[in-house]
Amino acid sequence: MLVVMKHGASREDIDRVADTIREMGYQAEPIPGRQRTAVGLVGNDGRVEDGRLLTLPGVLRVIHVSQPYKQVSREWKPDDTIFELANGVRVGGRDVVLIAGPCSVESEEQILRTARRVRAAGATILRGGAFKPRTSPYSFQGLGREGLELLALARQETGLAVVTEALDAEGVELVAEYGDIIQIGARNMQNYALLREAGRAGKPVLLKRGMSATIKELLLAAEYILLEGESRVILCERGVRSFDHHARNLLDLTAIPSVKELSHLPIIADPAHGTGRRDKVPPMARAAVAAGADGIMVEVHPDPASALSDGAQSLTPDQYDDLVVEVTAIARALGRSIARPAESAVAEG
Amino acid sequence: MLVVMKHGASREDIDRVADTIREMGYQAEPIPGRQRTAVGLVGNDGRVEDGRLLTLPGVLRVIHVSQPYKQVSREWKPDDTIFELANGVRVGGRDVVLIAGPCSVESEEQILRTARRVRAAGATILRGGAFKPRTSPYSFQGLGREGLELLALARQETGLAVVTEALDAEGVELVAEYGDIIQIGARNMQNYALLREAGRAGKPVLLKRGMSATIKELLLAAEYILLEGESRVILCERGVRSFDHHARNLLDLTAIPSVKELSHLPIIADPAHGTGRRDKVPPMARAAVAAGADGIMVEVHPDPASALSDGAQSLTPDQYDDLVVEVTAIARALGRSIARPAESAVAEG
Amino acid sequence: MLVVMKHGASREDIDRVADTIREMGYQAEPIPGRQRTAVGLVGNDGRVEDGRLLTLPGVLRVIHVSQPYKQVSREWKPDDTIFELANGVRVGGRDVVLIAGPCSVESEEQILRTARRVRAAGATILRGGAFKPRTSPYSFQGLGREGLELLALARQETGLAVVTEALDAEGVELVAEYGDIIQIGARNMQNYALLREAGRAGKPVLLKRGMSATIKELLLAAEYILLEGESRVILCERGVRSFDHHARNLLDLTAIPSVKELSHLPIIADPAHGTGRRDKVPPMARAAVAAGADGIMVEVHPDPASALSDGAQSLTPDQYDDLVVEVTAIARALGRSIARPAESAVAEG
Amino acid sequence: MLVVMKHGASREDIDRVADTIREMGYQAEPIPGRQRTAVGLVGNDGRVEDGRLLTLPGVLRVIHVSQPYKQVSREWKPDDTIFELANGVRVGGRDVVLIAGPCSVESEEQILRTARRVRAAGATILRGGAFKPRTSPYSFQGLGREGLELLALARQETGLAVVTEALDAEGVELVAEYGDIIQIGARNMQNYALLREAGRAGKPVLLKRGMSATIKELLLAAEYILLEGESRVILCERGVRSFDHHARNLLDLTAIPSVKELSHLPIIADPAHGTGRRDKVPPMARAAVAAGADGIMVEVHPDPASALSDGAQSLTPDQYDDLVVEVTAIARALGRSIARPAESAVAEG
Repeated sequence: MLVVMKHGASREDIDRVADTIREMGYQAEPIPGRQRTAVGLVGNDGRVEDGRLLTLPGVLRVIHVSQPYKQVSREWKPDDTIFELANGVRVGGRDVVLIAGPCSVESEEQILRTARRVRAAGATILRGGAFKPRTSPYSFQGLGREGLELLALARQETGLAVVTEALDAEGVELVAEYGDIIQIGARNMQNYALLREAGRAGKPVLLKRGMSATIKELLLAAEYILLEGESRVILCERGVRSFDHHARNLLDLTAIPSVKELSHLPIIADPAHGTGRRDKVPPMARAAVAAGADGIMVEVHPDPASALSDGAQSLTPDQYDDLVVEVTAIARALGRSIARPAESAVAEG
Repeated sequence: MLVVMKHGASREDIDRVADTIREMGYQAEPIPGRQRTAVGLVGNDGRVEDGRLLTLPGVLRVIHVSQPYKQVSREWKPDDTIFELANGVRVGGRDVVLIAGPCSVESEEQILRTARRVRAAGATILRGGAFKPRTSPYSFQGLGREGLELLALARQETGLAVVTEALDAEGVELVAEYGDIIQIGARNMQNYALLREAGRAGKPVLLKRGMSATIKELLLAAEYILLEGESRVILCERGVRSFDHHARNLLDLTAIPSVKELSHLPIIADPAHGTGRRDKVPPMARAAVAAGADGIMVEVHPDPASALSDGAQSLTPDQYDDLVVEVTAIARALGRSIARPAESAVAEG
Repeated sequence: MLVVMKHGASREDIDRVADTIREMGYQAEPIPGRQRTAVGLVGNDGRVEDGRLLTLPGVLRVIHVSQPYKQVSREWKPDDTIFELANGVRVGGRDVVLIAGPCSVESEEQILRTARRVRAAGATILRGGAFKPRTSPYSFQGLGREGLELLALARQETGLAVVTEALDAEGVELVAEYGDIIQIGARNMQNYALLREAGRAGKPVLLKRGMSATIKELLLAAEYILLEGESRVILCERGVRSFDHHARNLLDLTAIPSVKELSHLPIIADPAHGTGRRDKVPPMARAAVAAGADGIMVEVHPDPASALSDGAQSLTPDQYDDLVVEVTAIARALGRSIARPAESAVAEG
Repeated sequence: MLVVMKHGASREDIDRVADTIREMGYQAEPIPGRQRTAVGLVGNDGRVEDGRLLTLPGVLRVIHVSQPYKQVSREWKPDDTIFELANGVRVGGRDVVLIAGPCSVESEEQILRTARRVRAAGATILRGGAFKPRTSPYSFQGLGREGLELLALARQETGLAVVTEALDAEGVELVAEYGDIIQIGARNMQNYALLREAGRAGKPVLLKRGMSATIKELLLAAEYILLEGESRVILCERGVRSFDHHARNLLDLTAIPSVKELSHLPIIADPAHGTGRRDKVPPMARAAVAAGADGIMVEVHPDPASALSDGAQSLTPDQYDDLVVEVTAIARALGRSIARPAESAVAEG
């Protein structure tokens, strides 16, 4: 940490900063400059509160040199985190994982039809919301436990792993019981009570980036999960807020190489929420794979026009077939392939 | 709702849109234009999902004419919402309410000293965090129930009403027991489970705008609370994300007249979180009152340099005294005054 | 255009709006709704000023249904704009165009070495700044006319076409004399005097998106150029401002399919300015091609560490070789190829 | 400047950074930390290009401690810049300056009527566009030189000083001839050729913040003007781009205390462009004065409904009268007053 002094800071001001740093239990290292002096704080363990220093006379600003997260960082663990799901699919390695399914689980027929089709196309993980966080209280809020039972049925029938969102402590427990991956949605990225529950549930967690979360905040949110003992965390870029509404959100694909530089955790992209329009999903799914994403999550619905939520951004099964062909070709061009389920899981399916 | 057709949309495309609207149970009203045709959907009750229409051939985009919120809107209730707290302070009326206190409750001495000083200066509501949502899991997380007990003690001693944040269902229950107003923080503005709990707790709710929430989303979040039966909701502008980090957040004071136009709910400003630096708090607090805010919430700490959180944006008690003099003068210039507690409450205090 | 009335607008208010529309020379078409009435303005030729209507009593807001641009729109010209440069390279068609070169022209040796290397790698257009718009007046401002002469020399030696930026009317004339494509930078996207000059210079124009320009504003800026008679315009996505500074800008690749939907003009991406860090350039260049970009512009410097500007985002020639191999593979996976110069031009080179 | 090394940077990496710094002509000062080493660059004169250092092996990032601007900074000149216009009005001192007038000059009657009314209300500077930068080429572009002649006539009749925008070199010359203050608009904040022309024209310059310009970029743009010898620069906050379109722009009033901390230049606010709606102008004008603005620029039109541009954000003369009463009361509450013209100028008017 570096405490930058104002141009006209007095000798006393500088000494007071150094003394305060020492009083806080760290070393102080004054660095004279041409325009101004700075005082380095040495020994920062990531817990230093800068408020006390910021308020001392003569202080211009405080610059944080160290990152506040630890276990999620590549400096803590240089090798990529790779783990295997119940159906044998490996996440975070050389293969690109395909996640697909409807926005919401609506009926047995809908979820089974979709599961079979996306599995045939090459997906290995089924998505589908049972608990839906909706901006308006008047929108469809999901089937709840019944939706989870339908997802479990689809898993049994197809061998697909299941990812679905939890909104509160009770939901975490239910999702951990019926599904394979607990999803934490963008609106809940900084719901720390929920992050802690998810980290204790014993299942991998898919953590979506908040609507205006920085990469640093995303990594700190993941740190909450790792601190509870769950290291199988998948990060997900799903678009951030922007001044231009030509798309629903601004899909920040540079987040993919940025996260890979800073962290060992796998990162996937969600081009459906990232763009909000069906015709933008295939180009942005291709772009995400080209940028190095470890997986692609898209919405597929047998009849998007009658979907109870997010129909406008759902692909038809035929469109999904075409997309898988394209992303497979791009993955290959970059020396990767599409993740396949373990043989045994396929046999069961 | 208006479905805008593409330039070259065929007669068939237009008819299909009209038929679909009728099938959904609404009236269709084609409006021919010079460059393109649009089809109006008449009878929108705020529950129309546009996904089905967006996906029809020939459709360019769907424009929402009606707002999706109801009970929070000024059209639903033209008169300002005004209500009285336990200590007789009226919120939402002609008077400007002053809320002050430390970021976190740290000790009995700290909270009592602060409460007495801010009350002497003119504040009528005490703020102080017992449960702290922190971006980093390594930061101070609050004293919990003990903090609530100290707040209750300060209330008893001073007659100040107490506002403090709840992070989960259990917290809502505790805050409702010990405090006067339940605060929902910016990170939880779209934590719908929490909003519902707060709406059922029988106490007024202070709802902070999310870090990148639109005014529309803020009002929809408040709608969740009103739908549970709690109409005493105070909205709070506390700054939004911006590309420029000259301040911690970008305090959007235009939100004040915008909310007042759209809704009957009171709105206050939090210039401490909105700017992040002590020296920016007084000018922005003054500006908020000048813009028409119904209240001002600021952080005051007897010794900011030793605060466990947010010290850099906390005022000293002396600085707070000066600020109250300034905002009082501005309120008067606009024909308002500073809210006073009821006589009896003062006597008790 | 649609004039939406407030909930309680009176019959008189609605009539006044309709009368005003007729007075302005258009047709008025009232559309009754369940919650509110709207009045359609029919016959909008893109020149309607909404100010007059917005200010009438009872008006809530005005919704623009038609886009304000014309000649740049796909509705005006459904087929993609494709054109050929002096060296036979076709822009806007099936092939992806590679543009490469240093940020600034620094010396004869530097520009010739770079030109030969990028041409060998597969580039067909050479970039290099002679006039540099710099945020700080103390930064290197470019070699000016001497830089243009060096670019012309490099063109003669290699057969590469040359694109370089103009900052004012005099610069447009010089760039049109020495170069093949006139670049308008992000800071000047709404410098309308400059856009008009560029549109009259008789050379194709490369127009970069402004730092916080919407797609609509980008298309309107291009409209200024087309209106002067120059239809050979290449749009360029180069990243926009964001709240998160994990990269220099937020590269908005969804702009590529969005522009392709709305306009017939070719669009390329600039991942160097879009990210600001060399290690992010290859993944984002690949992503741009995967998203459907018609070209990729990157910075290549024989010795980035000694570059006078933007060294941190410049690739070495070896890194560029690798990048071309990757984007070629992705282009092929999507049924496209990399643009080649005409045989004759190669022979000359 | 501080070069932060990666966690695992080798001794050699660190030495190479130090050597490079010395080679560039500065002192190197290694600072060992607990998690990582940093190397300070001492002697930074504001011209250091960080590209060379960023690209060295083992470097994580480069932190700029010094600000790149000089003459605009408060460290360069601690006292506020105060100057007097031709009509005796002092800008930048204790008094708040009122600037008012129509968006565009439309006719002799319109500009004279407006000038007389705003002068009677208390304004001392007349605004009015003769050259209009318009997003769409199909919008009204201003009366040009005729508009300037009408402004000069209004000045002669009323004693008001005149501020009006210049779009190019020729415009700067004309505005300097007919007006008192040359306005550089938001779209041209980084049009460096124009900034230099304005800085050489011998008249004060009103520089508006760009639509997504940081405070640092605004100050660097002003530095271009000061470097040409013109120190009478007025900065203007006029709203920035935001994700929420509840208002046309997001008026960033915290920019006022931020600029006052960093620079000695006066700063005013433009709440009309900052909000885009007439009903938001009075509250935000009041808020700007409360936040410490040195002036307020608003649009006033005798008949907003028939304005050729920006009618929706223009006040009527009666509304302006009310606003002046309010801002006068707020200025007084803060110990300031509204600027008055010199006696002689009033007599002339």
